[in-house]
Amino acid sequence: MTRNKLKLGIFGFGCVGTGLYKVLEEAESVDATIKKICIKHPDKPRPIDKKYFTTDKNELLYDSEIGVIVELIDDADAAFAIVSEAMKNGKSVVSANKKMIAEHLPELVKLEKKYQVPLLYEASVCASIPIIRNLEEYYDNDLLTSVSGIFNGSTNFILTKMIHEKLSYPVVLQEAQAKGFAESDPTLDVEGIDPKYKLCIILFHAFGLITKPESIFNFGISRISDFDLEFARQRNFTIKLIARCNKNNNEITGLCAPTFIEKENTLAHVNYEYNGVILKSAFSEKQLMIGKGAGDKPTGSAVLSDISALTYDYRYENKKYIHLNKQLKLVDTKIYKVYVRYPDPFSGFNDFDSIEEQYSSILGNYLIGHICLRKLAHSSWINDTNINVIFFS
Amino acid sequence: MTRNKLKLGIFGFGCVGTGLYKVLEEAESVDATIKKICIKHPDKPRPIDKKYFTTDKNELLYDSEIGVIVELIDDADAAFAIVSEAMKNGKSVVSANKKMIAEHLPELVKLEKKYQVPLLYEASVCASIPIIRNLEEYYDNDLLTSVSGIFNGSTNFILTKMIHEKLSYPVVLQEAQAKGFAESDPTLDVEGIDPKYKLCIILFHAFGLITKPESIFNFGISRISDFDLEFARQRNFTIKLIARCNKNNNEITGLCAPTFIEKENTLAHVNYEYNGVILKSAFSEKQLMIGKGAGDKPTGSAVLSDISALTYDYRYENKKYIHLNKQLKLVDTKIYKVYVRYPDPFSGFNDFDSIEEQYSSILGNYLIGHICLRKLAHSSWINDTNINVIFFS
Repeated sequence: MTRNKLKLGIFGFGCVGTGLYKVLEEAESVDATIKKICIKHPDKPRPIDKKYFTTDKNELLYDSEIGVIVELIDDADAAFAIVSEAMKNGKSVVSANKKMIAEHLPELVKLEKKYQVPLLYEASVCASIPIIRNLEEYYDNDLLTSVSGIFNGSTNFILTKMIHEKLSYPVVLQEAQAKGFAESDPTLDVEGIDPKYKLCIILFHAFGLITKPESIFNFGISRISDFDLEFARQRNFTIKLIARCNKNNNEITGLCAPTFIEKENTLAHVNYEYNGVILKSAFSEKQLMIGKGAGDKPTGSAVLSDISALTYDYRYENKKYIHLNKQLKLVDTKIYKVYVRYPDPFSGFNDFDSIEEQYSSILGNYLIGHICLRKLAHSSWINDTNINVIFFS
Repeated sequence: MTRNKLKLGIFGFGCVGTGLYKVLEEAESVDATIKKICIKHPDKPRPIDKKYFTTDKNELLYDSEIGVIVELIDDADAAFAIVSEAMKNGKSVVSANKKMIAEHLPELVKLEKKYQVPLLYEASVCASIPIIRNLEEYYDNDLLTSVSGIFNGSTNFILTKMIHEKLSYPVVLQEAQAKGFAESDPTLDVEGIDPKYKLCIILFHAFGLITKPESIFNFGISRISDFDLEFARQRNFTIKLIARCNKNNNEITGLCAPTFIEKENTLAHVNYEYNGVILKSAFSEKQLMIGKGAGDKPTGSAVLSDISALTYDYRYENKKYIHLNKQLKLVDTKIYKVYVRYPDPFSGFNDFDSIEEQYSSILGNYLIGHICLRKLAHSSWINDTNINVIFFS
């Protein structure tokens, strides 16, 4: 079999772009060379020759020699404009932009079909873990029942520090920000929005469902207090920000929220910037994939694997979306067991189907109960920052 | 894209064959039907209609309607005869037979090339873990540096029981045999030969190296004593039967042996019949895949994924074998740190490059030292069953 020689046009030369450059340098077996890199700030010092850089996107998008556009910028709207223009021009695209992919899946699937060009985005979900490729190729039948896990490295780093070093959320967040590890606006990570984008991409490749990110419930880690941590410790749990989805016949459920994890669960040992994905299927039972979920080189290596796949004309076939049951629907009527810490008085008792435990003390109050996801999501109290919710797994 | 409809001829209807039958029944999206099953014992009661069964292999091998031969028998020599005849007849083949694959890789690669037929064997290594597919497709560049892990479910079950329930090796082995979990002749498993076959298959798909199983050092778990277990406990280790290979420039090292694993290592939490594979590459760093390594359905589901892949004309491209450096060679000159328990007098001290620790007591003696693999493998004392060796990771 022959392999294509590729000429790349890269958008963005930040953390991932620089990582990709380093990785490409060392991977001699991948026959891909960088032709041009489009950047916003031409005066920034760069590790390679100035001739590679331009600020004019059209120098890449309309260069007939460039067969592959690698999109590695932050801005999701600008990214979508670049990616769709590239595809219209018949160029293959590799992207690491989870927000852009998750928000534009219907358009992107149409573009892939209309212009018959591959769009690969392994690096957008859990960086170095090849989850999308495995969902597409290996779990390509209808036996998969659930995908869940730790999809965000920054929050897993924060939670690991909070639990292992008994530090409070604001202290750890500040440290992570000082080290440049968390964004100055950490909202997307700590409120569980970033892993929700990833969950949307997984829902598409796991089950063939396209859904809008805003249809999925997310709850973050920013309200986790010492009281909550002490509760977890007493019951021998750790806490992880878990994104999860399940398929039951044609009904799909999905959510992203902090979750108690038993110490016997392997996910309890997935710490710091590592991500972990658990797949359950009718016959292979539980499978777990663990790897670095962030960082320039792990992400760069996922981008490299996509580029390498293009040398063999690989593309996602979107098999489940095309071949499997189209009657799938996202439902929010499932009942979940949750822990809720609340200040007195608490107006939410009637929202619960049942309450298993209730505890009050001078330090705080909590209940453990069963509640319908829709009721929880639309409750009057969920936005009260004095109230925290943690799911049971 | 269109999918092929497949008609299967299956050899063997034991544990895995029955598992595959169940899995096929439920996977409606995989368009494959069983036409004929070749078995040895026609009088055994079977869960499906008698008309499917035959004892004449030619009824499958020369049936032009059968496009795929699924080989699930025990006997490696008979399996090779069946598989090569099927390939010569232009049939695609799926096999779960690690011994047959490992011993016949050079011939099989030639047959694949000459007759242009796919031969898939995901189920032969770690059952439900899609390790071969990932090595072929995702880690298809030259950046991989090592693959290691727990490749054998029976011995991991035995070791887990020994360590968690503080039982001796003969006691656990007897229990496992009584439950039909270990073979009446457990040699292939407990002496580390089965995982060595798997390591040979991994060496081919990870690095492109073909090597004979007998070139690789293996040491089993049958000599592990209570004294050894107590040593492990005192140092806060667990013991796993680890197969591992490394690439350093063109030099490949590989071995399979009981190994001390620190409790912080995720592999320490891969217990009972679960398998775990750790991949290290220059940039994605450490990745871990965990799943059931044995059992009818997990293995059946791996076979199903291969069958499903054939509906899309998938085949292993053996990219690394074809494209990467052919100068690779297996070397046994690397120095390893090992623990050796020995009875007095011990003749092997001079074989060590250095000795770090030495302990003697009425209960037993051990040393911890550094030794060249070749010296260890060819030492005068390695075959003494009163001596045990455990590697450090």
